Amino acid sequence: MRRKDLLGLQDLSKEEINRILDVAARFRSVSERRIKKVPPLRGRTVVTAFFEDSTRTRLSFELAAKRLSADTLNFSAKGSSTAKGETLMDTARNIDAMRPDAIIIRHAAAGAPHMLARAFPCAVINAGDGINEHPTQGLLDLLTMRDHLGDLQGRTVAIVGDVYHSRVARSNLFGLRALGARVRVAGPGTMCPPGLSELGAEVCHGIDEVVEEADVIMMLRIQRERMGPAMMSSSREYSRFYGLDLERLKRARPEVLVMHPGPINRGVEMSPDVADSTRSVILEQVTNGLAVRMALLYLLLGGEEAPDAAS
Amino acid sequence: MRRKDLLGLQDLSKEEINRILDVAARFRSVSERRIKKVPPLRGRTVVTAFFEDSTRTRLSFELAAKRLSADTLNFSAKGSSTAKGETLMDTARNIDAMRPDAIIIRHAAAGAPHMLARAFPCAVINAGDGINEHPTQGLLDLLTMRDHLGDLQGRTVAIVGDVYHSRVARSNLFGLRALGARVRVAGPGTMCPPGLSELGAEVCHGIDEVVEEADVIMMLRIQRERMGPAMMSSSREYSRFYGLDLERLKRARPEVLVMHPGPINRGVEMSPDVADSTRSVILEQVTNGLAVRMALLYLLLGGEEAPDAAS
Amino acid sequence: MRRKDLLGLQDLSKEEINRILDVAARFRSVSERRIKKVPPLRGRTVVTAFFEDSTRTRLSFELAAKRLSADTLNFSAKGSSTAKGETLMDTARNIDAMRPDAIIIRHAAAGAPHMLARAFPCAVINAGDGINEHPTQGLLDLLTMRDHLGDLQGRTVAIVGDVYHSRVARSNLFGLRALGARVRVAGPGTMCPPGLSELGAEVCHGIDEVVEEADVIMMLRIQRERMGPAMMSSSREYSRFYGLDLERLKRARPEVLVMHPGPINRGVEMSPDVADSTRSVILEQVTNGLAVRMALLYLLLGGEEAPDAAS
Repeated sequence: MRRKDLLGLQDLSKEEINRILDVAARFRSVSERRIKKVPPLRGRTVVTAFFEDSTRTRLSFELAAKRLSADTLNFSAKGSSTAKGETLMDTARNIDAMRPDAIIIRHAAAGAPHMLARAFPCAVINAGDGINEHPTQGLLDLLTMRDHLGDLQGRTVAIVGDVYHSRVARSNLFGLRALGARVRVAGPGTMCPPGLSELGAEVCHGIDEVVEEADVIMMLRIQRERMGPAMMSSSREYSRFYGLDLERLKRARPEVLVMHPGPINRGVEMSPDVADSTRSVILEQVTNGLAVRMALLYLLLGGEEAPDAAS
Repeated sequence: MRRKDLLGLQDLSKEEINRILDVAARFRSVSERRIKKVPPLRGRTVVTAFFEDSTRTRLSFELAAKRLSADTLNFSAKGSSTAKGETLMDTARNIDAMRPDAIIIRHAAAGAPHMLARAFPCAVINAGDGINEHPTQGLLDLLTMRDHLGDLQGRTVAIVGDVYHSRVARSNLFGLRALGARVRVAGPGTMCPPGLSELGAEVCHGIDEVVEEADVIMMLRIQRERMGPAMMSSSREYSRFYGLDLERLKRARPEVLVMHPGPINRGVEMSPDVADSTRSVILEQVTNGLAVRMALLYLLLGGEEAPDAAS
Repeated sequence: MRRKDLLGLQDLSKEEINRILDVAARFRSVSERRIKKVPPLRGRTVVTAFFEDSTRTRLSFELAAKRLSADTLNFSAKGSSTAKGETLMDTARNIDAMRPDAIIIRHAAAGAPHMLARAFPCAVINAGDGINEHPTQGLLDLLTMRDHLGDLQGRTVAIVGDVYHSRVARSNLFGLRALGARVRVAGPGTMCPPGLSELGAEVCHGIDEVVEEADVIMMLRIQRERMGPAMMSSSREYSRFYGLDLERLKRARPEVLVMHPGPINRGVEMSPDVADSTRSVILEQVTNGLAVRMALLYLLLGGEEAPDAAS
């Protein structure tokens, strides 16, 4: 891979995306073995710097690094120098001075990873920046779809919920468009404004309209912590108009895939029986997340041999 | 070991307990060497998932895994998806999707580890579930007693304090009964109700009564955080009636063992001079805890060679 | 090294300090390699026990241990048995019972590391005890100065700010005096009382007076969290009288070094243009911190071969 960093899917080509997914698919087998560890990143240092809480994403990166034999360090913003008034750049300069090979950053400010990537020689991976992108989530979603559907060219993916504030939706949108898929989005007006069409999405307003034609239905998490009370009158109402339950799912194609980036608000954006149905590939997404992160660390840190040879 | 999980001592046979203790006794030497690490779990993944705080138990498991060369991941409930409203099962499904070899769980709900054990293929170890069991604490206590007393058949163990709410007491009770020991319990009426006799304990009410005949006196921690003010009028009063001080210890056999699961409330359940006396084996309990956890991880994850050969 | 512990620089000889710095200088290269890991502490256990928050110092120690192939455990006071009322010594006895090779302790009480060092056979490293000492910070500062100035005999180091409450200042003072440097301190009267001259410092009160002659200007962090409002009327006033800005820096020698232990309060003790100027060696301090901690762990844990041979 020619890139130093992974900051978003917006500027990735179809070829680059497919290369990452190919390597990820091969790394998947490492986690199915008894000895779940390969040596290519032995003696390399991977730092996770999460300025927003996200246990599951952080652990996925940490485990990806460990299964490649890297050493990991967890920098968390709580009780850190950030809390003592240090700027992000000063914190990052301090991390850089310890010579990490990669920094995985999650930050509330869109563009924070880009700032670090420009400033430092190590690889920077965006693990979510504000409402901008969450590219490893996008890649794991693409891998999951590709597993089931093969080439995504001409496929239709419905994204439902708070598309406007979702970095998951944005990364998916960029990735899906690069791979030639059609993206249709639906959600309450404030969460799914017409302006999204500039990004290449078809903005619909009813969930039923997008469900019927879809090869994939991706339900977004309602992030109650990010929204004011004005945006939706209640969870129950949201669920009635935009939640996916079995009744609604019946209108979809029988082979449709149901996805969710997790953690699920069961009973809000998705009913429990849908989350646990045979159409749900939610847990495959988690497994693929680990593989995608292994692939990225491997490729960005300059794995020269093919991963099969390295194992 | 034929088991996939360790959920409690209630259903363990004498033979199974002794097998674990035998392996633990052999692993103890690893921690006394200069190079405190053996290879049998290289490339295996051990996840600690503590939904209640317990630094020392978590670190003991983490170090046990590391000394067997496993990789460890710490999932803590703070700031995690649990805090975002995810159910325990969804959290666990996510952990499982990363293919751990073992999950060590502590949870406020009795039965939580059992639910995970049924649902997932990996080994599940109960590190404390509500007021049900804390089996590795029970095993380390048994190992400590066995070291000093040999066969526990016919020995008398006094357990003093809040027996009713103590998962430590319950696990000890099951283990001690399996090994043929006699268990006598004492504590304030609300903490030591007559119903405990159904579990095989002799319920006494005065501490002096149980101290005199005992081969072992196990003082339980008063968990002030779990009790309302009605249960005991004050720490000082508790200490006077149920605390162990040197005066009381004089009535016991000269070779009696004094145990405590820690952390000690010095001056409440035990006076400092007793905690530090030659009869106290409290720190041996900690050392044995590490060995027992190494043995369990080794046995549950399918160590085939004898641990001596593996070292 | 003949010592078991590193508790402070007060009792270190010039020869001991130079030996540590020599080893640190050699270890520095490990972090510049592709494979940033050497084997001398494989199978050894290093526990960090931080009873005060300090992400950056903790991570520096943790990474130092990992780059020497040791296993690390992080004991943090939050949610730990300390929070449940356990004494420091009981907590430490519990850590010791798991047979660590080294305990790195930060604690609000001066003398806490000394208490542990006397009680336990493992190496104890002071990572900051109250307002007493922070010896690894002192050593990394000395290494940074030595890199630029060579022998420090007869050199002049200015320390500016809250010298009285600064363990960083104290460790530097002891180390600099041992190496024959002259130390001049300046700060508001309550932060820089005349009594400091008993430690070998020349107490001045104006910053301009110390800046002019200095080979090194070390600006201390204003720890707003430790001070009452009476000690300084405002950050702005502090900055005007005791902050280092470009205007003031012009009065210093052209080759002067500007240092700061971090995290910087930009605009308070130092203006951003000074922090980022060519005279600033602040990030070299961080890099040297890692090397000094590797050297100490290596020397205290009995590295017998020369570190070059070990790599």
